[in-house]
Amino acid sequence: MGERPVKAAILVIGDEILSGRTQDVNIGQIAQFLSPLGITLGEARLVSDVHDDIVAALNALRARWDYVFTTGGIGPTHDDITADAVAAAFGRAIDVRADAREILERWYENSGTELTPARLRMARIPDGAQLIDNPVTGAPGFQIGNVFVLAGVPKIARGMLEDIAHRLEGGAVTQSLSIRLEGVREGDIAEILGQAAADFPSVSIGSYPWFQERAGGELSRGVAVVLRSADGEALASAEQTLKAALAAQS
Amino acid sequence: MGERPVKAAILVIGDEILSGRTQDVNIGQIAQFLSPLGITLGEARLVSDVHDDIVAALNALRARWDYVFTTGGIGPTHDDITADAVAAAFGRAIDVRADAREILERWYENSGTELTPARLRMARIPDGAQLIDNPVTGAPGFQIGNVFVLAGVPKIARGMLEDIAHRLEGGAVTQSLSIRLEGVREGDIAEILGQAAADFPSVSIGSYPWFQERAGGELSRGVAVVLRSADGEALASAEQTLKAALAAQS
Repeated sequence: MGERPVKAAILVIGDEILSGRTQDVNIGQIAQFLSPLGITLGEARLVSDVHDDIVAALNALRARWDYVFTTGGIGPTHDDITADAVAAAFGRAIDVRADAREILERWYENSGTELTPARLRMARIPDGAQLIDNPVTGAPGFQIGNVFVLAGVPKIARGMLEDIAHRLEGGAVTQSLSIRLEGVREGDIAEILGQAAADFPSVSIGSYPWFQERAGGELSRGVAVVLRSADGEALASAEQTLKAALAAQS
Repeated sequence: MGERPVKAAILVIGDEILSGRTQDVNIGQIAQFLSPLGITLGEARLVSDVHDDIVAALNALRARWDYVFTTGGIGPTHDDITADAVAAAFGRAIDVRADAREILERWYENSGTELTPARLRMARIPDGAQLIDNPVTGAPGFQIGNVFVLAGVPKIARGMLEDIAHRLEGGAVTQSLSIRLEGVREGDIAEILGQAAADFPSVSIGSYPWFQERAGGELSRGVAVVLRSADGEALASAEQTLKAALAAQS
């Protein structure tokens, strides 16, 4: 793995998340999958099932980031328009492809299910794209350029990620650690954190207030301080300095 | 409320979600808050704590959508740069503002806490912005133009939404209903759904496959079909037609 920071983006496609009906878990799942490969997420976008919106977002993201992962919109129904939008974004033709069709034929034969015209839509793959294995429901995803087109169902997306790990070139692996402080507000420690951020420029220091209700209904609060760096020594040194400063203040 | 579709976007600011450490809940929370007001989400973006990225995303979103809600980055620490980025996006000056300072002074006096320089950063408000009340931790959010700047902590964001409901002009309220089918795959019902989508153009029909593990470890699967429309009659008619077609097939 190299030392260059490698960054990715996620494009979540579909009305289900934006309507508030369903909670997205793919952003977190993909971030956690990429992290040990030394790839961090730089951006994520959620768009509706609207052809032009998908095309515009995908073209913006793939131009800027090393990798783009899309989730959603590759099923057999009328609102599954991702494959066609991706083909349009790349200016490629798209049609039912023999290799994808064969995968579906085998899969549905094994499960005694008819390969209907609707299901055959899932074999529509842009010219030049490389298939991504779907160990859960058969219908493949695909890769074209730096874009990986995955299913929206989290279990299927997870299965597809396993097939592409070896296609990804990672960067320096970022290590992170967190210091959980209770009974403290961000304002109590802001100067200390700002100083540490200035003293350790290679370490990213984030602070995240939390609130928690205890069993008895009593509210407790605190701050989680998260340190991240590709430089393990700097990270350890920043942690030590920060803990000493926090202890000296309290 | 008018009949024009009113659409909003969300800009989630901060590395915490993109790193996969924390699961975003604000997109869903805000979507659910807006829905009964007749406002639907058209897009969401998640960006890092990077000034230029926040400015660019905010300017793209506020130009396109009726309303934009930002979450995150308005606390007292060094990585809280949202207020300055929003001011830059609007080309406005920003400084500690008397009204916001007063709110903080009162709040911290009541809680016997010192108003440190770090905490005072939370009174930095762009020129011309209108404050948003924060019933949870005092430090206000603000509105400027069609942009509402909220805290990232979900409980605080929720509290702030209550203060701005009356500032939002809603559209026609969309009704929705869902039909939960078990033991069915999307491919089994794709033709029926496509036909219904063609027959009822004013109704949005989405289909969402689900997988569930039963207590015994057995896997069950199905499809949730979601119908949405501002036209209640068309919605009911589409539901009836769809249920009849599904029953006739099974």
